[in-house]
Amino acid sequence: MSFLSTLNSRWAATGSLLCVGLDPDPDKFPNSLRNDVGSIARFCIDIIDATAEFVCAFKPQIAYFAAVAAEHQLEQVCHHIRANHPTIPLILDAKRGDIGDTAALYAREAFDRYGAHAVTVSPYLGTDSIEPFLAHSGKGVFVLCRTSNAGSGEFQSQVSHGLPLYQHIASRAASDWATKGEVGLVVGATYPAELKIVRDIVGDMTLLVPGIGAQGGDPHAVITHGSNSVGRGLIVNSSRAILYASSTDHAAGAHAAARAAAATLV
Amino acid sequence: MSFLSTLNSRWAATGSLLCVGLDPDPDKFPNSLRNDVGSIARFCIDIIDATAEFVCAFKPQIAYFAAVAAEHQLEQVCHHIRANHPTIPLILDAKRGDIGDTAALYAREAFDRYGAHAVTVSPYLGTDSIEPFLAHSGKGVFVLCRTSNAGSGEFQSQVSHGLPLYQHIASRAASDWATKGEVGLVVGATYPAELKIVRDIVGDMTLLVPGIGAQGGDPHAVITHGSNSVGRGLIVNSSRAILYASSTDHAAGAHAAARAAAATLV
Repeated sequence: MSFLSTLNSRWAATGSLLCVGLDPDPDKFPNSLRNDVGSIARFCIDIIDATAEFVCAFKPQIAYFAAVAAEHQLEQVCHHIRANHPTIPLILDAKRGDIGDTAALYAREAFDRYGAHAVTVSPYLGTDSIEPFLAHSGKGVFVLCRTSNAGSGEFQSQVSHGLPLYQHIASRAASDWATKGEVGLVVGATYPAELKIVRDIVGDMTLLVPGIGAQGGDPHAVITHGSNSVGRGLIVNSSRAILYASSTDHAAGAHAAARAAAATLV
Repeated sequence: MSFLSTLNSRWAATGSLLCVGLDPDPDKFPNSLRNDVGSIARFCIDIIDATAEFVCAFKPQIAYFAAVAAEHQLEQVCHHIRANHPTIPLILDAKRGDIGDTAALYAREAFDRYGAHAVTVSPYLGTDSIEPFLAHSGKGVFVLCRTSNAGSGEFQSQVSHGLPLYQHIASRAASDWATKGEVGLVVGATYPAELKIVRDIVGDMTLLVPGIGAQGGDPHAVITHGSNSVGRGLIVNSSRAILYASSTDHAAGAHAAARAAAATLV
């Protein structure tokens, strides 16, 4: 099944728009695992199994693994999702962006090595840097559009030909990239007005929306401004607010926090 | 010593502006190593030792290692450069770009794990995504400005307030980022007119220039358009044309090709 087919089936089965982001920080692990880099996979797998019933996707952030030489544990985490939760899409958050030959290698990293169903990429180098990802038929490619950080407008909102850059990105996604593969966009929950504008540009395209939870985005505003014509089209990510909901029992804390977060996304 | 101190000493000692890019593709290795993923470090170390006398820097491209789960070999390659060629700056080509907390982890990956003296980063998320790299005192941060690929102008040349985006990036680098750390810019050899414009914006700042060799950029034009007020300020990268100069003896081929390439950069 393609990424979008898997995602649509998952949305239909669960009604959930929640994505749990896997940003494992050993400094924040419960006492039994704390500061143990070797426990990253264990922590993530506990979170996955405790929250699976409430999610439409999982999104590991590769930087948390790469900083501590834990790529092998990321492979274990990805394998666990595919083997034990095969109906849940796996989005690798990598934000890669490079020239063609190199982009093709990053696509291999995401799709072949980690077996991700989708990956996040940066548009700064242009269409020819995105096409090697889109060339992987049936894989999802989420292009950064308007990111959730406080300073995201610095370049993303620079206006040319009457439109800010992020809207040009959205237009290109709808008119060109969508014809070449399963493209989506990343739009932060922290900018609901911009989320509405992007939705109006891209029709029913899937949007990956980080920024609820610890980053402070309003789930209700995300749904109001971001839903597509069938009330879906959103993968709304929360990481820290779920992973570290309990300082003593991470699985139980994540279970309760994911259930609560999913319930706000209706 | 800081990155820029090391680089200035190296320029003074060798007179070379050549950087050898380490893009190890086992499909292109000589017969003795061909298609052996386990030979990546061996191949790179041979290239490093054969070309060191002609270079001002080495630049491993992390995607070539990540695609084949060879991070440990990248660690070996980086260790070899630092241990055996300690006067040569090591630039990790990673083009990372993410929100603050995550950017800080990518900075750890580059500077702590791999021991790089400098790293390439993407500006799409804005200043707050670059600051975690600049916060590593004495490390170099090369921000993508005008990249070497054919389609780089698609977004990088969009004009706002009378200037294309890449010139806004250059202005921000000169006026802000340069006050916070050892910042440089990436400008492709394939766009010599734009290289001249960036040079005029940023004064004597160091520019990392990919695109000579296999990508077809003209070394003479790079020097003419890109040199700073003291005839330096350029790290000019060639990868494939040096790594695969000989299909039988990669070290001897790279030695001759690096000597010839360095001689064109005067």
